[in-house]
Amino acid sequence: MHEEQHLRSSEFIRDVVIGMSDGLTVPFALAAGLSGAVQGAGIVITAGLAEIAAGAIAMGLGGFLAARTEADHYKSELKREYDEVERVPEQEKKEVKEVFAAFGLSPALQDQVADEMAKDKDKWVDFMMRYELGLEKPEESRARRSAFTIGASYIVGGIIPLSPYFFVQQAADGLTYSAAVTIVCLFVFGYFKSKMTGQPALKGAFSVVMIGALAAAAAFGLARLVQGL
Amino acid sequence: MHEEQHLRSSEFIRDVVIGMSDGLTVPFALAAGLSGAVQGAGIVITAGLAEIAAGAIAMGLGGFLAARTEADHYKSELKREYDEVERVPEQEKKEVKEVFAAFGLSPALQDQVADEMAKDKDKWVDFMMRYELGLEKPEESRARRSAFTIGASYIVGGIIPLSPYFFVQQAADGLTYSAAVTIVCLFVFGYFKSKMTGQPALKGAFSVVMIGALAAAAAFGLARLVQGL
Repeated sequence: MHEEQHLRSSEFIRDVVIGMSDGLTVPFALAAGLSGAVQGAGIVITAGLAEIAAGAIAMGLGGFLAARTEADHYKSELKREYDEVERVPEQEKKEVKEVFAAFGLSPALQDQVADEMAKDKDKWVDFMMRYELGLEKPEESRARRSAFTIGASYIVGGIIPLSPYFFVQQAADGLTYSAAVTIVCLFVFGYFKSKMTGQPALKGAFSVVMIGALAAAAAFGLARLVQGL
Repeated sequence: MHEEQHLRSSEFIRDVVIGMSDGLTVPFALAAGLSGAVQGAGIVITAGLAEIAAGAIAMGLGGFLAARTEADHYKSELKREYDEVERVPEQEKKEVKEVFAAFGLSPALQDQVADEMAKDKDKWVDFMMRYELGLEKPEESRARRSAFTIGASYIVGGIIPLSPYFFVQQAADGLTYSAAVTIVCLFVFGYFKSKMTGQPALKGAFSVVMIGALAAAAAFGLARLVQGL
């Protein structure tokens, strides 16, 4: 129960990180790029909101379908393993032995382990699923929750770099404030993200900022170039 | 050697799918959204190219750093496991036994397995890494290759919905051709992606098209709404 809770909260945080990391970066870079090519802040807002809607749907629904596909895949493999332990138990025992042979157990011990495991079909199949196929049982309602969290985090992340443009007339002014606000947010975001995944926090914060700045600079440069043609 | 090859090609395809799926969807939706709000095709091209640059960098570099973080994490955990089998071997043996207890092996057999596995430290540590911690050894050069593939696929995917705008004056005309071309490409892409992952191909193709169309419709509607304010 407690572990379940822990698993859920870490998946939630992972989904927030996935959504927010792209949400802060891509709309920021798009706004920066457009600011190098257009005069008014209005068009930056229009494009930015369109991008946020598109990105949130693509990431959220994309995540939903990926998780559903994973769950379907698990179910069909599970059915096949149950079928195989009924139909070709000796073959399945051989596969158990192969897993243990790889870890240097003697043939005699491999036999013993395979025979004992074969007594409980559920545990036997569970073993095959995890250690032969490398598949973890996906949580039932995870797909929907995950889609919503990723999409919502993308929107929250994307609103941050876009918000300064609501308060200015000229796109160029918006860019100054947007860059300042977003770089601070990327730094804070990168710092906590690294802390939570047990990575060096400052190094992580700097690389998140670096990706955002690079994406924005590339978009800005490219938009200027195209505009000049 | 053959399996290595197989693994590499499936990772390559996975990276192409990740990059192209977002590349086809998000720039398409952004272009559609802007086409609902602006007159000239030029601004759609500028914004589209800025978005493609930003998205390719965010996804590519993001993927690179994620893979690097994963590799660092693996190395530090590996070091810790080697350290622990030296320092607290009885504790580590207990952890091996716990893995097998979960699969219903008798305590006597758990002891035998743990003792035999402890004879070869490399294999013992390998077992702990995989089955206690659930970590697979990441491939050394994967991070760089993966970043490049994802970024390049995003660019290729993004150029497709944008290309019609180069041949028209009015954004609205661009949208008609862009929608036609992109929906065909999303369908073909979804079809082969599902085929390759062993999913029902038509169902997969329809859901990929559905995500793209929904994202484009949302972006279009939102941009119209904002423009009308």
